Amino acid sequence: MIQTMQQISTIEELRVQIKAARLQGKTIGFVPTMGFLHEGHLSLVKAAREKCDLVVMSIFVNPLQFGPNEDFERYPRDIERDSQMAAGAGVDLLFTPSVEEMYPRPILTTVSVANVTTPLCGASRPGHFDGVSTVVLKLFSIVQPDYAFFGQKDAQQVAVVTQMVNDLSVPVEVIPCPIVREADGLAMSSRNVYLSAEEREQALVLSQSLRQAAAWLEEGLPLEQIKARIRQMIADKPLAEIDYVEILRYPDLQPVETELPGQAIIVALAVRFGKTRLIDNLIAAIR
Amino acid sequence: MIQTMQQISTIEELRVQIKAARLQGKTIGFVPTMGFLHEGHLSLVKAAREKCDLVVMSIFVNPLQFGPNEDFERYPRDIERDSQMAAGAGVDLLFTPSVEEMYPRPILTTVSVANVTTPLCGASRPGHFDGVSTVVLKLFSIVQPDYAFFGQKDAQQVAVVTQMVNDLSVPVEVIPCPIVREADGLAMSSRNVYLSAEEREQALVLSQSLRQAAAWLEEGLPLEQIKARIRQMIADKPLAEIDYVEILRYPDLQPVETELPGQAIIVALAVRFGKTRLIDNLIAAIR
Repeated sequence: MIQTMQQISTIEELRVQIKAARLQGKTIGFVPTMGFLHEGHLSLVKAAREKCDLVVMSIFVNPLQFGPNEDFERYPRDIERDSQMAAGAGVDLLFTPSVEEMYPRPILTTVSVANVTTPLCGASRPGHFDGVSTVVLKLFSIVQPDYAFFGQKDAQQVAVVTQMVNDLSVPVEVIPCPIVREADGLAMSSRNVYLSAEEREQALVLSQSLRQAAAWLEEGLPLEQIKARIRQMIADKPLAEIDYVEILRYPDLQPVETELPGQAIIVALAVRFGKTRLIDNLIAAIR
Repeated sequence: MIQTMQQISTIEELRVQIKAARLQGKTIGFVPTMGFLHEGHLSLVKAAREKCDLVVMSIFVNPLQFGPNEDFERYPRDIERDSQMAAGAGVDLLFTPSVEEMYPRPILTTVSVANVTTPLCGASRPGHFDGVSTVVLKLFSIVQPDYAFFGQKDAQQVAVVTQMVNDLSVPVEVIPCPIVREADGLAMSSRNVYLSAEEREQALVLSQSLRQAAAWLEEGLPLEQIKARIRQMIADKPLAEIDYVEILRYPDLQPVETELPGQAIIVALAVRFGKTRLIDNLIAAIR
């Protein structure tokens, strides 16, 4: 089937297209991204393509979700390449608004989610999840999708968006999709491009320690011991600097009070290599 | 025309009705209220009736927008009477969810609007407008109206909701409607029922001082002098206790830095009579 993708950069034009699709009774799948696409993003498009009549992808590097000392300015961008990849993967509408289009005046409205934003990246990156929930709600208002597809690499983001959608009765179903990895195990990320060859090599410790954690969980090791062992594995890599190593209840991301068999948990890592901060996680259950 | 109103108390049931109306291409008008209806509310229904194919009214006394020492518990409720009045005014769908239906679990998501919420009732009632913007966004998500009708008595609420809708690109047009008054000038309010006969009499000072303010503005009196005269008028009423008397730029509710002719302003009052807090306002321009 020949698919002709339309690239749209204004909210008004997108609304016209969405309205037309709605009138034809089409279901709308939405893949919000910050661009610099990789196989992880394309797996979300594939899931949307299978479930929905119209697939909308947004590419917007959202300044609200970057801290003052973070990488908003240098975040990798390549809209030409992204556009080709999106078209190839079956995106129907590619929404690429400018910052001025999304925030024509300073935005005074903030959407905040409590509790699930407290630990992990919420603790390391103050304000980050306010920026995420605010822009996602705005994108949902513009695209009005039936389904929205998010990668589980950003597991906390999935938890935050799901909580927001439930709390505010937003008429969209959030569909989390599995982490996509390079052949050697490194979780796909637009930020991987920052890594030097040496950092790239040592960064394998994230996926390797999570694979070990899965085995240790199988063996029934206590969670504190698993955390200590992961920390040790990462500390053995000279270029690695731990931001956090946490094991929390899933999906509410609260501390595991008692280790009940069957309890769903997330093993979540954030590690810096030079200026690059990588995250990865494993969702599992206590034996 | 015989109008049969449907009363609905669950989100799911309302969604079914809204979806059916949408499929028939109907435009949807929405009048969110806390019930204990009066002519002010009915004027909103009238405006919605004239502009839209389907008129949805919600009645929900929203605990989020009441402070711990405010009147949530004793806020007047009379769903039987409200239902009859709504049907008589031409409401098609009356949405009357319980607190449990709206907030089945503690809500973790908050929608906050900065700046316009800082002065006036935002200063007197901390957290009030977070409760308002959060519930209004949730109701908008449920009802998905084309137009939403709000009374200008709550002028700051209109400003907050308009700002939120613009910031988040919510696909709804906010329609402010004029204040409706009793024959003697008292602005209609569900809280007027709290007033004793004596308080009710003295409460006329709100509308009277605003009428005076309009005349003083016509005469070109400086704003500070107008504020002082209003304060004096209110202070002359022994049962009145001023919460605030403010003149601000409209609609952004910021201080008037320089008194430019033609500048739109709001004269806003909040006055307590015993346990009852009344508000009223005038929107005008500097001469």
